[in-house]
Amino acid sequence: MSISEICLNVKSASRELAACPSGVKNNALMKIAQELQNHKEEIFRANEKDLRRSEAENLPAPLLKRLKFDESKLSDVISGIHSLIRLEDPVGKTLLSTQLDEGLELYKVTSPIGVIGIIFESRPDALVQISTLCLKSGNGVLLKGGSEALETNRALAGIIISASEEAGIPKGWCSLLETRSDINELLRQDKYVDLIIPRGSNEFVKYIMDNTNIPVMGHADGICHCYIDAYADPDMALRVAIDSKTQYVAVCNAMETLLVHKDIAGTFLPLFKKAADERNVELFGCSRTAAIIDVKPVPDDDWRREYLDYKLSVKIVDSLEEAIDHINKYGSGHTDAIVTSDEQRASRFLSLVDSGNVFWNCSTRFSDGFRYGFGAEVGISTGKLHARGPVGLDGLVIYKYKLLGKGQIVADYAEKKRSFIHKKLNKDFPI
Amino acid sequence: MSISEICLNVKSASRELAACPSGVKNNALMKIAQELQNHKEEIFRANEKDLRRSEAENLPAPLLKRLKFDESKLSDVISGIHSLIRLEDPVGKTLLSTQLDEGLELYKVTSPIGVIGIIFESRPDALVQISTLCLKSGNGVLLKGGSEALETNRALAGIIISASEEAGIPKGWCSLLETRSDINELLRQDKYVDLIIPRGSNEFVKYIMDNTNIPVMGHADGICHCYIDAYADPDMALRVAIDSKTQYVAVCNAMETLLVHKDIAGTFLPLFKKAADERNVELFGCSRTAAIIDVKPVPDDDWRREYLDYKLSVKIVDSLEEAIDHINKYGSGHTDAIVTSDEQRASRFLSLVDSGNVFWNCSTRFSDGFRYGFGAEVGISTGKLHARGPVGLDGLVIYKYKLLGKGQIVADYAEKKRSFIHKKLNKDFPI
Repeated sequence: MSISEICLNVKSASRELAACPSGVKNNALMKIAQELQNHKEEIFRANEKDLRRSEAENLPAPLLKRLKFDESKLSDVISGIHSLIRLEDPVGKTLLSTQLDEGLELYKVTSPIGVIGIIFESRPDALVQISTLCLKSGNGVLLKGGSEALETNRALAGIIISASEEAGIPKGWCSLLETRSDINELLRQDKYVDLIIPRGSNEFVKYIMDNTNIPVMGHADGICHCYIDAYADPDMALRVAIDSKTQYVAVCNAMETLLVHKDIAGTFLPLFKKAADERNVELFGCSRTAAIIDVKPVPDDDWRREYLDYKLSVKIVDSLEEAIDHINKYGSGHTDAIVTSDEQRASRFLSLVDSGNVFWNCSTRFSDGFRYGFGAEVGISTGKLHARGPVGLDGLVIYKYKLLGKGQIVADYAEKKRSFIHKKLNKDFPI
Repeated sequence: MSISEICLNVKSASRELAACPSGVKNNALMKIAQELQNHKEEIFRANEKDLRRSEAENLPAPLLKRLKFDESKLSDVISGIHSLIRLEDPVGKTLLSTQLDEGLELYKVTSPIGVIGIIFESRPDALVQISTLCLKSGNGVLLKGGSEALETNRALAGIIISASEEAGIPKGWCSLLETRSDINELLRQDKYVDLIIPRGSNEFVKYIMDNTNIPVMGHADGICHCYIDAYADPDMALRVAIDSKTQYVAVCNAMETLLVHKDIAGTFLPLFKKAADERNVELFGCSRTAAIIDVKPVPDDDWRREYLDYKLSVKIVDSLEEAIDHINKYGSGHTDAIVTSDEQRASRFLSLVDSGNVFWNCSTRFSDGFRYGFGAEVGISTGKLHARGPVGLDGLVIYKYKLLGKGQIVADYAEKKRSFIHKKLNKDFPI
């Protein structure tokens, strides 16, 4: 089958899936969890093949670790599915109900987006999380995982597809794409695919964004900041900044630039330098920073660096406003934190920093769907439309307006025979 | 100033505007209403110039009518502003509040999108509606109106900008673009502009969608359907179908294709033909329709025609499912109605038709922000993301996640020293 035929099939199935009752979807999720357990040896064997091939191809150790799918990963994804079953169905919620006139009722009701194409990195557990999130939110899905995980993905997708279809989910709702060239074909299917979510390197996400007419949700950069205000408690500032930078460096919500108010720089920076040295964090700083602690100059004076490594840019600012402006100019709209004991200054920072996640007195690393309590996430969005920040079930639905009448026509209102009453109903969609 | 500098200015102002209290925004709206009233002679004089020039250029009469801005239009836009003042501020609403842990609280709070570029048709009243909707929703705006209305738009924008800025709205929040080449420059400003809303002909909207990296919200086609089910009351079906087609033919929510169930076609079509003839509606139909009433064949057998005229395509279908499939295949996701007395069949239609507005027993012409009670609309969206159907204030905001802590770090949770509690708070954002 061509990619276009596959996409058409997913589209057709997605229309039926949109009307699937919660019970059917939850049973299918239960069945998926059971069948993953029942077929675990098959999955582990497939994963062994991927691991052996990738070792032979000298895949770096951290990537091998991500690729590994063992009892512990299986147990994680299965418990993830059980949490997902417990979450409320995001489809069919009435967001607004208005009586336009006697017997003419308007309902705004959540509905799935349709067909979502998700291109993800080498972790095979991502395949399970993403496909089950799409199922619960009633969306058809096209999955393309990392080629290192080919065999594991095939095994997982096979089990998920057959278990869900046996449980009554419309045939064809989920499909696995396998090659790079499939991606390029996918990007052309704007007739059938409603949304692309790419996860991966900056370059990859930018490539996707530049090469499709389909809306793309995600983030290219994660240039996150901590701003240490003049009114910060230095100990708290130190804990938050060190955690933001070092708790896990290779991720999008790690701090890449530290901004320090001039009035606290003399106290704070030497403390920070010592802690950073202990953790082998290499510091690059502005000239005023260099006058206080030993730092290298920021390469090319480029404040848009996303190191994803034990490296950090440091800048002294004269005011809260300068910090806000710096973040709005050089940041990527992902996650930015202020440390201060002054509530008014915190409030101003949270209002004016134009990012999806803005934090007061806590680490940027909290920016994550699991930590936010969303069950899971399909990705983090730095866009300004539809969904921002970690995207869970709620970001995978949109709404429809459903209007129920008894034969009303617009001419009667245009000719002033009748007029609108626009009364709030607070009522769920009834049929 | 270059377009790029103008956009940068609007962007800067929009960040301050995002934090503007409701009172300031409502006062500014009040002031705008007053100043439009105070400067009405100036506006009418400018409009006279536009009208005289357009008459000399032989602009068709319906367009001249749309271009006219007189006492009655002024009174409409001023009463529109007063309704807008009474609507709830869409910014700063807490959509979700969760206690992640003791002293670590997550809030999902609505915020403006940022900078919106709106390109609209020749009606100068649209300028007032759009700019005031953007102000109330805290967005900076770039306006480009029809060139026929150049002088009127200049007068209106001048008054709106000076009145709002005097009332404390950040300087630069609103800017008027005047030439076609400005549009092409605008489409390149993805650094500063967050959303483009084009209103106008299909070709124009498609051109915009194909020529920018900025997200576009709107609709190209409005291929709306009425489906007359086997279980329809023929009189109600007739009223709804005639209103959907003829109440105003030149608009996106007018019916373009009538689908009729085979079991009712013999009764309904002759009735419909008579009513259509009386209103000079020219009918094009499938061969089965032609066997019952006198119709021409559908030109090129093309079921995606948007006539925007006293013309209509008519097709007989064998089942509810065929009607749904036809609409999903040939429709544009705008507005589609079913007429039936069977609630289950209505429910199935409303679930499975994948359009922003799906109606039971009422005219497609109800699909409109004013009729829905939204106060006004910036446009109607047929996209599947962010906002669907008529887009009012709610479609002009997004949200931010704001996390308030007391120095929490992720390492404590990763090392299982602490764990998340994820307790719902039902509390408004407190600072």
